[in-house]
Amino acid sequence: MPSHSDFRRPPLHRAVADVRSAVRSALAAHVREGETVLVALSGGPDSLALAAATAFEAGKQAIRAGAVIVDHGLQEGSADVAARAAQQARALGLDPVVITRVSVGDAGGPEAAARTARYEAFESALSDTGASALLLGHTLDDQAETVLLGLARGSGSGSLMGMAAVAGRYLRPLLGVRRDDTHAACAAEGLEPWTDPHNADPSYARVRVRHNVLPVLEAELGPGIADALARTAEQLREDTEAFDVMIDEFIEEICEPAEAGIAVSVSALAANPAALRHRIIRMVALSEFGQSLSRSHTLAIAALVTDWRGQGPIDVPGISVARNGGLLEFSARSSTVG
Amino acid sequence: MPSHSDFRRPPLHRAVADVRSAVRSALAAHVREGETVLVALSGGPDSLALAAATAFEAGKQAIRAGAVIVDHGLQEGSADVAARAAQQARALGLDPVVITRVSVGDAGGPEAAARTARYEAFESALSDTGASALLLGHTLDDQAETVLLGLARGSGSGSLMGMAAVAGRYLRPLLGVRRDDTHAACAAEGLEPWTDPHNADPSYARVRVRHNVLPVLEAELGPGIADALARTAEQLREDTEAFDVMIDEFIEEICEPAEAGIAVSVSALAANPAALRHRIIRMVALSEFGQSLSRSHTLAIAALVTDWRGQGPIDVPGISVARNGGLLEFSARSSTVG
Repeated sequence: MPSHSDFRRPPLHRAVADVRSAVRSALAAHVREGETVLVALSGGPDSLALAAATAFEAGKQAIRAGAVIVDHGLQEGSADVAARAAQQARALGLDPVVITRVSVGDAGGPEAAARTARYEAFESALSDTGASALLLGHTLDDQAETVLLGLARGSGSGSLMGMAAVAGRYLRPLLGVRRDDTHAACAAEGLEPWTDPHNADPSYARVRVRHNVLPVLEAELGPGIADALARTAEQLREDTEAFDVMIDEFIEEICEPAEAGIAVSVSALAANPAALRHRIIRMVALSEFGQSLSRSHTLAIAALVTDWRGQGPIDVPGISVARNGGLLEFSARSSTVG
Repeated sequence: MPSHSDFRRPPLHRAVADVRSAVRSALAAHVREGETVLVALSGGPDSLALAAATAFEAGKQAIRAGAVIVDHGLQEGSADVAARAAQQARALGLDPVVITRVSVGDAGGPEAAARTARYEAFESALSDTGASALLLGHTLDDQAETVLLGLARGSGSGSLMGMAAVAGRYLRPLLGVRRDDTHAACAAEGLEPWTDPHNADPSYARVRVRHNVLPVLEAELGPGIADALARTAEQLREDTEAFDVMIDEFIEEICEPAEAGIAVSVSALAANPAALRHRIIRMVALSEFGQSLSRSHTLAIAALVTDWRGQGPIDVPGISVARNGGLLEFSARSSTVG
């Protein structure tokens, strides 16, 4: 006669439990009973594991869960990939399941253009379904890659803060989950993910980081590097948010309109630590003139405050900055010579 | 008949000019007329280029420049290496030239022990010679390596802020100069640097970063990565300093002695952004209990403030933290189980 324990279900796979737990926390913190959420599903292992966990957890929190599948139309057979993902989503119990075919332009390069088209499709799906949140499958490994890719574009906390776990209606519940675990979760649940051929194409910087850079970092510095990069992103995002809040609190008090632009109080800039002074200078350049200042241009402008020897106006792309008594005056200039 | 221009000196090599310019700025900003500075000279290309530039620039600013050479006694022939470096220093006109033989212990591993012995020797040389500053030859490439090495130890701005350009009496004038340029400067001046065999020994993490990690990053992400890492260090150091100043301004107001440790105001922690809240928690743990908290332990303690559901004390290595009304009470615990 079989003992009672024979009737128990097989133990839950650890990876499945981890993905579910991450989704459970995100839903509990950001979605209310009766609301609808959408999973952004590509059919790949990360978003498929996310879809399965969301289908499981949403019901328990009285949340309705659907999926949105974006067909970028960039690869042969992309409509079939989308249809198969939709079928998997329905089999998981997700409802509604929306497929959106987009047309990808070429503004900003192929990756940026695809991203723009994708987020437009997400916005439409959110408004069409009345969903309150969209869940994205980015993992801890994606976050580590994003930090390294940030280094190729710039420096400092603003470039290295990776992706946000929460950005408006977009949630990334899996930023603390390893990619190995989304793969293992799919396998444990008998889900067959799609393999995106782009993920093996070394013409993408992200693919090179994944296959060439991170493995070298882990081999030479130790296996904790991806974790350290992801934790770094989290902390640098906090730092950036804190500085933004502080600057928001006093930026209006220390700025005033000037003849051909805007003027900032020298004494206020001098009284703040360098981290704030440099951020204020960059913020003024960006918000008033649409210019993203380099570190060296920022420092040259800051020297008008901290190392004042009567020097003339500092010309940076699109902006001229002069010290006039107690004010730093920013004005537009037509030349783009730095 | 030779024209006037034939009597001109050969044009100054660009690398020599760059190293000199960096030294000139550092001396002008941090050393006064009549004072003495010491160059920390290993005989390698970075410190040799620094020594040559300092000998040249110090005289022009009425500063006396000497050198200190530390013989770690770890490699065969180290006394000869030191004697040759001292000879080069004297030939450059540096005076005084101090050779210090140290004995390296083993606390914290070979690299840390050598570092400790070296800085003790620097301190003695500073006080013996009455010098007001010691110049170190770390370059931009060293800084980039230090940032990557920081990732192996931790995360966030505190781990990735690299070396300080100015730390008390220690100056690092060459943090903006590439290693290629110190080598080129030595060659242009006919100086023959010593090649440290340790710099080719892959048992050192720094050597692996230099030869295996940075070249891969530059190949896959672009040649600007070392620059981006060095700029990142500079900005994260500024950020860290700004947070330190802010916390210093109010830490005493929000803390009070508690029965078995220290208590921090919950409302003050709640009112501050996460970046400050987490730093305050880490600072209390470190300064009161000598414990360096991990990110996850820090977050668990912070949840007593931001996600209060009546949960019990949080036990982390060496510390127990309980919420008691409006206070977060930190107390010592003997167990080291996290």
